Amino acid sequence: MSYVKDFKWKKGIKVHEMMDAFSNVGFQSIELAKARDTIVKMKKADAKIFLTFTSNMVTSGLRGFFAQLIKLGMADMIVTTVGGLEEDIMKSIGEKFVIGDFHSDDIALYEKGVNRVGNLFVTNESYCRFEDMIAPMLDKLYQKKARWPVSELLREIGLMLDDESSLLYQAAKKNVPIFCPAITDGSFGFHLFMFQQKHKDFVIDVVKDFENILLSTSHDDIKGLISLGGSISKHHAILASLLNGGLDYAVYMTTARSTSGSMSGATTQEAKSWGKIKDDSDAVTVIGDVSITFPLAMIGALEQLSDEGLI
Amino acid sequence: MSYVKDFKWKKGIKVHEMMDAFSNVGFQSIELAKARDTIVKMKKADAKIFLTFTSNMVTSGLRGFFAQLIKLGMADMIVTTVGGLEEDIMKSIGEKFVIGDFHSDDIALYEKGVNRVGNLFVTNESYCRFEDMIAPMLDKLYQKKARWPVSELLREIGLMLDDESSLLYQAAKKNVPIFCPAITDGSFGFHLFMFQQKHKDFVIDVVKDFENILLSTSHDDIKGLISLGGSISKHHAILASLLNGGLDYAVYMTTARSTSGSMSGATTQEAKSWGKIKDDSDAVTVIGDVSITFPLAMIGALEQLSDEGLI
Amino acid sequence: MSYVKDFKWKKGIKVHEMMDAFSNVGFQSIELAKARDTIVKMKKADAKIFLTFTSNMVTSGLRGFFAQLIKLGMADMIVTTVGGLEEDIMKSIGEKFVIGDFHSDDIALYEKGVNRVGNLFVTNESYCRFEDMIAPMLDKLYQKKARWPVSELLREIGLMLDDESSLLYQAAKKNVPIFCPAITDGSFGFHLFMFQQKHKDFVIDVVKDFENILLSTSHDDIKGLISLGGSISKHHAILASLLNGGLDYAVYMTTARSTSGSMSGATTQEAKSWGKIKDDSDAVTVIGDVSITFPLAMIGALEQLSDEGLI
Amino acid sequence: MSYVKDFKWKKGIKVHEMMDAFSNVGFQSIELAKARDTIVKMKKADAKIFLTFTSNMVTSGLRGFFAQLIKLGMADMIVTTVGGLEEDIMKSIGEKFVIGDFHSDDIALYEKGVNRVGNLFVTNESYCRFEDMIAPMLDKLYQKKARWPVSELLREIGLMLDDESSLLYQAAKKNVPIFCPAITDGSFGFHLFMFQQKHKDFVIDVVKDFENILLSTSHDDIKGLISLGGSISKHHAILASLLNGGLDYAVYMTTARSTSGSMSGATTQEAKSWGKIKDDSDAVTVIGDVSITFPLAMIGALEQLSDEGLI
Repeated sequence: MSYVKDFKWKKGIKVHEMMDAFSNVGFQSIELAKARDTIVKMKKADAKIFLTFTSNMVTSGLRGFFAQLIKLGMADMIVTTVGGLEEDIMKSIGEKFVIGDFHSDDIALYEKGVNRVGNLFVTNESYCRFEDMIAPMLDKLYQKKARWPVSELLREIGLMLDDESSLLYQAAKKNVPIFCPAITDGSFGFHLFMFQQKHKDFVIDVVKDFENILLSTSHDDIKGLISLGGSISKHHAILASLLNGGLDYAVYMTTARSTSGSMSGATTQEAKSWGKIKDDSDAVTVIGDVSITFPLAMIGALEQLSDEGLI
Repeated sequence: MSYVKDFKWKKGIKVHEMMDAFSNVGFQSIELAKARDTIVKMKKADAKIFLTFTSNMVTSGLRGFFAQLIKLGMADMIVTTVGGLEEDIMKSIGEKFVIGDFHSDDIALYEKGVNRVGNLFVTNESYCRFEDMIAPMLDKLYQKKARWPVSELLREIGLMLDDESSLLYQAAKKNVPIFCPAITDGSFGFHLFMFQQKHKDFVIDVVKDFENILLSTSHDDIKGLISLGGSISKHHAILASLLNGGLDYAVYMTTARSTSGSMSGATTQEAKSWGKIKDDSDAVTVIGDVSITFPLAMIGALEQLSDEGLI
Repeated sequence: MSYVKDFKWKKGIKVHEMMDAFSNVGFQSIELAKARDTIVKMKKADAKIFLTFTSNMVTSGLRGFFAQLIKLGMADMIVTTVGGLEEDIMKSIGEKFVIGDFHSDDIALYEKGVNRVGNLFVTNESYCRFEDMIAPMLDKLYQKKARWPVSELLREIGLMLDDESSLLYQAAKKNVPIFCPAITDGSFGFHLFMFQQKHKDFVIDVVKDFENILLSTSHDDIKGLISLGGSISKHHAILASLLNGGLDYAVYMTTARSTSGSMSGATTQEAKSWGKIKDDSDAVTVIGDVSITFPLAMIGALEQLSDEGLI
Repeated sequence: MSYVKDFKWKKGIKVHEMMDAFSNVGFQSIELAKARDTIVKMKKADAKIFLTFTSNMVTSGLRGFFAQLIKLGMADMIVTTVGGLEEDIMKSIGEKFVIGDFHSDDIALYEKGVNRVGNLFVTNESYCRFEDMIAPMLDKLYQKKARWPVSELLREIGLMLDDESSLLYQAAKKNVPIFCPAITDGSFGFHLFMFQQKHKDFVIDVVKDFENILLSTSHDDIKGLISLGGSISKHHAILASLLNGGLDYAVYMTTARSTSGSMSGATTQEAKSWGKIKDDSDAVTVIGDVSITFPLAMIGALEQLSDEGLI
């Protein structure tokens, strides 16, 4: 039996000490500490780990952390949406995103060519520079072949980048596949379409990529999931795991709620009815903004794993 | 200037009278009444209307309402995720979904082959019957051609169904395209993969479907959006509209919040910075469970449009 | 076993027919239909019914509905916060609240003497008129006695009003006590303080009012609760019921979530651990904006009760 | 102009370094860093600081942190609800609260005399021990006088306790008043009622306490607020500040949303329309579970203030 403990600040307290304290504070802080524990467990069990996130997290400074985690071997497969990949490329060529305000004059921003993502701003100029890059990349890829499964195409793009903080770059270097089940749902889709106009046999093979994600783990693998936010990134990793016997470990971090029956809000509890998560698995749902909760839980895990020489 | 009015019940009050009253109640009821007004306006302006929804709404009884709306000409383009299309097919062959409980014993459900979606249950048996149907359908389609844009494939499937309450069926009959940017993200994806194993040249052309959604409206069209829930369904319709000059009318109905910078929670306000919504457009965000808010706002609109002979 | 049913619009559909349909739609619409059913059951069982709400609901047009419900005998005890009572008084002398916008220029509003409550506006002038009324009322009451339990004082105020749409007025006429455990937490508190400055023996007896709420029901009574929003209004009714053996029927309608361990977000499920709700009781939590959900569920109940001659 | 920065983990990272990094991550992490900055500013400006919180936070391990903050001079006035004060007393005599689970069998808990607060458990036994203490305390106080303003009564109780981690104890020692505008809304209310049955002249003077909170600051004071959760604790501090010219600095931390027009969800933005917050003030709203967000922001502030010798 574990008890609530009065938290007290000590000067110079470290994040991993804070995580230890959270175990005994209450409410979501306890779930956060469980998330840390579950990440440690999945790594120690040598699980194949899916890391999934939505585009807005790549808009944020978590992008560099994702790259670092891939480098450290904390993610074996990535699932995400295409907007974030576009922004990863922009950032890899030096584009900067401004810290703005949730309460902005959106029409004034529009007139200045500034696009708002919550309290962050991305300029049209950054999109233009992305567009300038993408066309020659597609040319190069098309010279190799005309039919591309998504993750293979993304790997090739990663190999063309040169930025330690890029997740496409790190994933390519570490042979970590990036799955993106809706590759056309962004500016990238528009450029694929323009390219196909000129090269009618150019095709993105999403079905083949389903095979790729399916074969990225097997029934025999121990499987873990760290899912940040909801959407198809979350669902696609869960689906692939389900077809291979379900997850052994799962951490869901989200602001979405379960009361509307949505995928984004579905809890680790609900996932058990589907066999998406094995009934004896370690699974935890943390409700809160991922920009705060994820670094904390993950740092807690990294510190422990590093102390034990596991990363 | 409009004022708060004391609401009073009159026996036999109709939904559209309730919607009128909501205009003067307060908080989300006012936004709901604005949503009704915006739907009426977009229809009267002869806008091309995108209707987008997430899969769980097709799990619910809204599925038949979507079919009816297509039949009534209230939607010109559909964007959704694949799970709902699978369930539309199951229901079209008579599968029934049970009303369960949010607080279920999920492990017991799993053992009985019952999958929980919030407070609704879908059985493994329903999935089996879906699978039995899908293989011969793909065979038939493959005989026509090997390379299928998503919306064209979905149209063919719709034509093979025979259920007035099916959205695939009604959409096919009315030539309303259904866009599904992540067609592999479900059981359907698994069957596409199995089929491709046997027919290596079989390919789903998502890039061509980007062209299809792009050409489904033009810069000159007046464009409207009714977006239920978040996710790529919402984003894809917005993206396609943006590339054609932005939306003139937009209704977002969701439980997701704007504070995390997610696409799902992004408001109509934020969309203006992107030019996704024209700055002078009628746009409203209603926060609440779509299973309640959408039928109310839409019925309010249908009654008005019907009174004026517009549907 | 109950099944999901495809919803279809019929022209002229009534609210109570919509409520019937909601039973088979899914997610919160089902919970809403259960709320309707639970209200019907508690009334048929001749339960003593607590109706609780937060101040903002009185700011809205629900205020007149609350008054109507008291008149119809649908509430035996009211628990609320003082801000709403102030606004009930303002409205009873003809003050009007403007329908504004969630996205307002709050500093500009301040400069115009306009106070924002979500998308509703209350002017400083309305507060001034309230203040002009309250001083002579306190004078009159003080002539009767110096020590006032809250609910008795509110009853006297209700008797001084003359507005069929006022909840203070209707409650006073129907001998329905209004409990307000934090009577000083508003403009009213300031005026009580000013009055006490001149009349040192003037005192508000909140302890005596605890007795009043405790004796408003007994162990033997069947007890029901309709709780709108969270806060002390909700907690106070639950506490009083707990001390009398717990509730037989409970409907919670709120936007607050259970994940932070707050009172406002605590579910009917959690309440069972406290004995706040009897374990065999009919209890339901509906997540959503009360300005939409409450009128629907209550109208559904009123129509049924009226058909059976019970109101 | 400030830019998004890629976050990277360094081994042994401290909480205050994490807070620095959060300034450049995005979404709520940025708001959290602003909250830290605002706390530092209010302390440096020598503001009188209101610290408000709901009962569940005292159920959690934040209770000891609140006591430490009072001891460190970080709070000049406390506003809270009575449930937390009851639990502070229980804990001060050694009662322990168990860490449980959000998904518990609530009926089984009830049968074991265990009450659930989110994922924490409080036993009936703890309540019994509280009750045993409170009666003799009231006897003692009654010997001094019969009419007690709330904050004075709470101060006397604090002086009777002997626990460094108790907020009542630390507040009493530091002459920090604890305001509790709904003192009867808990088990404490029941005991006050029982006591009044025997001593008819015993009365709690809530009106006098309104004077106390009003005089706790003046128009001339610089005023700050740190509000955790919503409810009357938040409102009461804001109201008292409004009457003294408004707040100069305000930090709201909550999970409640602004879309329903509730007090709990009202933002610092909305407060400006009321003059509750001065229009030129530093004000920030952080959305998230306070059990995580508050310690982080406050530790960030404490480290800075300590480095500068200000605490």
